[in-house]
Amino acid sequence: MRIDIITVLPELLESPLNHSIVKRAQDNGLVEIVVHNLRDYSQDKKHHRVDDYAFGGGAGMVMQVEPIFRAITALKEERDYAEIIYTSPDGEKFAQPLANRLSMGGDLLILCGHYKGIDQRVRDHLITKEISIGDYVLTGGELAAAVMTDAIVRLIPGAIGDEQSALSDSFQDNLLAPPVYTRPADFNGWKVPEILLSGHERKIHEWQFQQSMERTKRLRPDLLND
Amino acid sequence: MRIDIITVLPELLESPLNHSIVKRAQDNGLVEIVVHNLRDYSQDKKHHRVDDYAFGGGAGMVMQVEPIFRAITALKEERDYAEIIYTSPDGEKFAQPLANRLSMGGDLLILCGHYKGIDQRVRDHLITKEISIGDYVLTGGELAAAVMTDAIVRLIPGAIGDEQSALSDSFQDNLLAPPVYTRPADFNGWKVPEILLSGHERKIHEWQFQQSMERTKRLRPDLLND
Repeated sequence: MRIDIITVLPELLESPLNHSIVKRAQDNGLVEIVVHNLRDYSQDKKHHRVDDYAFGGGAGMVMQVEPIFRAITALKEERDYAEIIYTSPDGEKFAQPLANRLSMGGDLLILCGHYKGIDQRVRDHLITKEISIGDYVLTGGELAAAVMTDAIVRLIPGAIGDEQSALSDSFQDNLLAPPVYTRPADFNGWKVPEILLSGHERKIHEWQFQQSMERTKRLRPDLLND
Repeated sequence: MRIDIITVLPELLESPLNHSIVKRAQDNGLVEIVVHNLRDYSQDKKHHRVDDYAFGGGAGMVMQVEPIFRAITALKEERDYAEIIYTSPDGEKFAQPLANRLSMGGDLLILCGHYKGIDQRVRDHLITKEISIGDYVLTGGELAAAVMTDAIVRLIPGAIGDEQSALSDSFQDNLLAPPVYTRPADFNGWKVPEILLSGHERKIHEWQFQQSMERTKRLRPDLLND
């Protein structure tokens, strides 16, 4: 799998893409992640400008259609993309089922918005999917791209050392994960539930399932209706 | 305002916290962001271990209560925190109103989970607010902390050069932002709506409001019921 990311701030993506699982997955050849600086596609050879004032006035700069068109066209000539994604607060909500689908669907191209946003013509003609990671406004789409990349890459078989660990994550079965505990069994009087120290494997699994159900009913009843 | 972040992977946060608006806000003294390596609080002086196997079995390591207790206690002795936040997929959903509130509420301490999660006793006794940035599973809480920090910091007065720009963002008035366009007015036949080139300020504002309403009704009718 390959993920291309187009951004005006490639530096911002450096550390998220070069640590932990995402780094290991790249080192192991499971995914290739390439970050492209949009300014390299600017026709303004002197200042490498990629934004301009909004038509109709209003505060904030708008990313121009031309450099984005050139960047996406150049990348599409090299390979087919399953999706050309724009990170935007009004896009489809990113959630685990979409992460699962994108992790299996082929190569991805992610365009990070910045400033006031991108020229609408890019969204109308070049983007195949708009995705929002949540109902909040970020300085740019870079962190959204990092979040999506992390969520997708860790689902690629082999990316996480212990496959079982991903299967028991929250959301994978529409249940929140049960509480977890580790040593010491008693910390300043804060005790681990007895059942977990009992050694009765079947009873422990029952307890964990009950805890998952209880937590899901209390915090996220909507997940049980899906 | 001060934001402290406790993590086992401080390196992962480097580039998101040192670019763009978040960097500028720190340079201008609007916010102080300090990242703490949890391993510095480990009692295991040799390997600086902070995780252990889960009681009751199951895949994945669990972050221990002891080093986290020591880290949070040390920081709380230095200052009062408005919230001690744990980033978790089953927490309260992070959204713009919560970002607004946290940007005005005082100093914040954010604990990033990693591995299979943290010992439940930390959540029961030390955390004051659990927050989820979305219904998806990430390798760790670091990207969630970076996302929250970015969303919060850009709301601090003075962080964004042009204040007007934040006020016209999506969500701030429960409406999605209208489409934006910049030069050229015609790109390979893809044209900017005539109205934006008309110069009639009042008509342009009417059109932008109509577009915002139409987009919100189509994509996020839930926002209009809030």
